[in-house]
Amino acid sequence: MGIIDKLIDKITLLKNPSVVGLDPQLNFVPEHILEEMYDTYGHTPKAVSEAIFKFNTEIIDAVYDIVPAVKPQIAMYEMFGTEGIDAYIKTIKYAKSKNMFVIADAKRNDIASTGAAYAKAFLGKIKIGDVEEEAFGADLLTVSPYLGQDSLEPFIDECRLRDKGIFILVKTSNPGSGMLQDLLVDGKPIYEIVGTYIEEWGTELRGRYGFSPIGAVVGATHKEQAARLREIMPHTFMLVPGYGAQGGTAADLSVCFNSEGLGAIVNSSRGIIAAYKGKCAPQEHFMAAREAAIIMRDDIVKHI
Amino acid sequence: MGIIDKLIDKITLLKNPSVVGLDPQLNFVPEHILEEMYDTYGHTPKAVSEAIFKFNTEIIDAVYDIVPAVKPQIAMYEMFGTEGIDAYIKTIKYAKSKNMFVIADAKRNDIASTGAAYAKAFLGKIKIGDVEEEAFGADLLTVSPYLGQDSLEPFIDECRLRDKGIFILVKTSNPGSGMLQDLLVDGKPIYEIVGTYIEEWGTELRGRYGFSPIGAVVGATHKEQAARLREIMPHTFMLVPGYGAQGGTAADLSVCFNSEGLGAIVNSSRGIIAAYKGKCAPQEHFMAAREAAIIMRDDIVKHI
Repeated sequence: MGIIDKLIDKITLLKNPSVVGLDPQLNFVPEHILEEMYDTYGHTPKAVSEAIFKFNTEIIDAVYDIVPAVKPQIAMYEMFGTEGIDAYIKTIKYAKSKNMFVIADAKRNDIASTGAAYAKAFLGKIKIGDVEEEAFGADLLTVSPYLGQDSLEPFIDECRLRDKGIFILVKTSNPGSGMLQDLLVDGKPIYEIVGTYIEEWGTELRGRYGFSPIGAVVGATHKEQAARLREIMPHTFMLVPGYGAQGGTAADLSVCFNSEGLGAIVNSSRGIIAAYKGKCAPQEHFMAAREAAIIMRDDIVKHI
Repeated sequence: MGIIDKLIDKITLLKNPSVVGLDPQLNFVPEHILEEMYDTYGHTPKAVSEAIFKFNTEIIDAVYDIVPAVKPQIAMYEMFGTEGIDAYIKTIKYAKSKNMFVIADAKRNDIASTGAAYAKAFLGKIKIGDVEEEAFGADLLTVSPYLGQDSLEPFIDECRLRDKGIFILVKTSNPGSGMLQDLLVDGKPIYEIVGTYIEEWGTELRGRYGFSPIGAVVGATHKEQAARLREIMPHTFMLVPGYGAQGGTAADLSVCFNSEGLGAIVNSSRGIIAAYKGKCAPQEHFMAAREAAIIMRDDIVKHI
């Protein structure tokens, strides 16, 4: 059974097609957690790493029984160097220990052996002498398409060989996404061209529900484009950012789901992890996160 | 004086517009270095990290007086997790201690606060409590344009505020680069459209030699496209991959330089760091690297 089948089963079981984005900007991390780690480790990357990891585990503990997946965005970790990457890898492991699916949001890509190194890092195994191990151990990874098909092949190989998945950037949720993505080539926007490729690349990998592990990132902030993409890529599973804080509504993003209510997973990051701000004591941040996750779930489910 | 002015001064001083790509695939690292570290640390990421770092320092020691810059490609490090990132950061520090310019080849990008986190990680400073420090401390960074102008702004800000530089992917050296990059929008290929934006974004940041720190990646493997790009982006400094192992020749890439012989820096990775293979004892790998760097320098200089 393929990764997207398993993800859809979990979504169906929990009746929740959403994912919590773990993008721990330091001003989202409750002050008491930061202070505890600053007291122990000083104002160091180690302190921040421990604070971010603790914050993440409290969020995960609060939502793992109602939310199928997390999406840690690596930039917020990478900025703290090796210690930050340590928190990132520990967060992935912790989420997996709670049976959550992990979407590594890294938007990686490069050519030839270098692209293959990213694919192996996030989705595959690395080999050191006679030892093979996972470096990051994510289930799915976001990937950028600008370099072309040959650059994406090592990622598609990991999907095929190791039952992993990718989400290729198609139409992103930011206001400036149109600069390249909306340009028209013979009357067809670039995002449709990329979408058409993705639909084709996934053909042989479709699972029980008709979706392939070669997915697409489609922003909730662009309703018409998302509807058109659902039409031209009926077998492509979508990761949908832009809900909530970025302005996308459940009504907007409902077009990403097919008539059976399948085909997408919707992300919210600060709307969940920073939900406590101005609402409850920072010590109870995870209760606000759980409540926000439930409200989001119900909002989305009502619209699909 | 801006970063590109300083880089051009160094290029002029050394009469060498080239950069050594530090992409240490494990099969490039000489066996005796790997074995030494395996003996000490076992078959672990720590062993690989130490081996890669030692290999890099020997390469840097062999070329720093004749080559102005290094370009460590992060995928080859990231695949070994925190230990790999440790080798990456140590390599940057070591190259800087030898007064080399460091181009972090990471092809990063994301939207809003996340893009800003990458920009701060590689080019800027991070703030932890009352401590400010550099996470990676690179001089220049490769960046992907698919997400649009707003996603690039945090990187451009670091260029402006901290005298750093970026190279935005325009026309990459891989065979499949045309999938998106060559598509025609009203008769104009995407790479020209991206190039035109870059030329414009750099307008106010041009330095003494007329080049801005908002640079472009233009592959040596596409001569006609490169010539056209030099024409439409006369003030844009180019990072030129694809020389040597990928098939680009000095005659091909000569079009990236202007009539004064300025405007580009050419990368070779395995052509330098793996030059020893089948040529000399692995213990003398750095001598082969130096020799290859000299041959590359002379080949390029002869053609511009």
